[in-house]
Amino acid sequence: MIRFCPSCGAPCEERVPTGDNRTRAVCTGCALVHYRNPNIVVGCIVEAPGGLLLCRRAIEPALGLWTFPAGFLENGESLAAGAARETLEEARADVEVLAPHALLDIPHIAQTYVVFRARLRGTDFGAGPESQVVEVLATDRIPWEELAFPSVSLALRLYVDDLAAGRQQVHQGVVHWTGAGSRYDLARYELRDHRADSLA
Amino acid sequence: MIRFCPSCGAPCEERVPTGDNRTRAVCTGCALVHYRNPNIVVGCIVEAPGGLLLCRRAIEPALGLWTFPAGFLENGESLAAGAARETLEEARADVEVLAPHALLDIPHIAQTYVVFRARLRGTDFGAGPESQVVEVLATDRIPWEELAFPSVSLALRLYVDDLAAGRQQVHQGVVHWTGAGSRYDLARYELRDHRADSLA
Repeated sequence: MIRFCPSCGAPCEERVPTGDNRTRAVCTGCALVHYRNPNIVVGCIVEAPGGLLLCRRAIEPALGLWTFPAGFLENGESLAAGAARETLEEARADVEVLAPHALLDIPHIAQTYVVFRARLRGTDFGAGPESQVVEVLATDRIPWEELAFPSVSLALRLYVDDLAAGRQQVHQGVVHWTGAGSRYDLARYELRDHRADSLA
Repeated sequence: MIRFCPSCGAPCEERVPTGDNRTRAVCTGCALVHYRNPNIVVGCIVEAPGGLLLCRRAIEPALGLWTFPAGFLENGESLAAGAARETLEEARADVEVLAPHALLDIPHIAQTYVVFRARLRGTDFGAGPESQVVEVLATDRIPWEELAFPSVSLALRLYVDDLAAGRQQVHQGVVHWTGAGSRYDLARYELRDHRADSLA
């Protein structure tokens, strides 16, 4: 919530600015309109000899659960550079970012995941400060019941299905919370508006 | 700039929070850390009978210059839905969003463009309130010297080159300002770290 103007400190009010069609936070002092926009999470599904590089999280949320390296894109960096930086930070791994694998929107939390396939350079990896452990796991040993987030689960499932079918695709889709049950129950999520385009 | 805390209104200071490695705006009152992250611009290169749907802008910046429909992704919508909404608003056109065409980062203004190919449904289109005129232009009639933004110019150039080569690709790249001359001079920009993957 933007209750106070980040620029002048005066209180904001929620209203539709002239010429707009959505409610924004508008400063009652300097009249600046403050927009709220989705954040980008960038990540890498890292192909390494023997499987994929996965991290068991050492921080909340989802402490102790598994994910591929991913995190918020920072100002001033590209999607690919951000995905590689997160991989270096969380998995101490130097990677070559390859093709986009999945563009997954999570509208109810205003996040968009941009997940790349990547390839481990060399053989070094290890747990960064946000990871308890980092391992190369064969795709038939992915801990599906212990994954951190629905976006991670869905992106990995698409990857594994593509691998089994001998294809590479770029996916678009919406991570939809079906509403019943806990937001932490990955079984309560489904992929909607899914479209896949095959890479040559 | 985040000078005042959007949550409590107290002044913020710029410092590196404990456990972080970047300068953030941290509230001197409630201690909340306020992150600044890139915004997503979504757009459509719309294939219509006879060419591409292009809009001459009726608003600043770049008033009077040409673009494909594009704008900021809003909270609560998917990339594809946002791209379709912008196309409806700016070009009064109902489109089917197809494959991703280009993921273009503009680090110096903290924006990432996600540009899709799309197909006009039906035959209706027209100028929305942000457009002076909307036209279907053959790809050999694109007004290269009168395009609005370097991202638009680069995305269209990639599209036209792919079309001429009889291929479809998904592009990644960084829109880099070479530094000399005006930020409004499209010739001063170049595409860096370009990678293209062919769609089947």
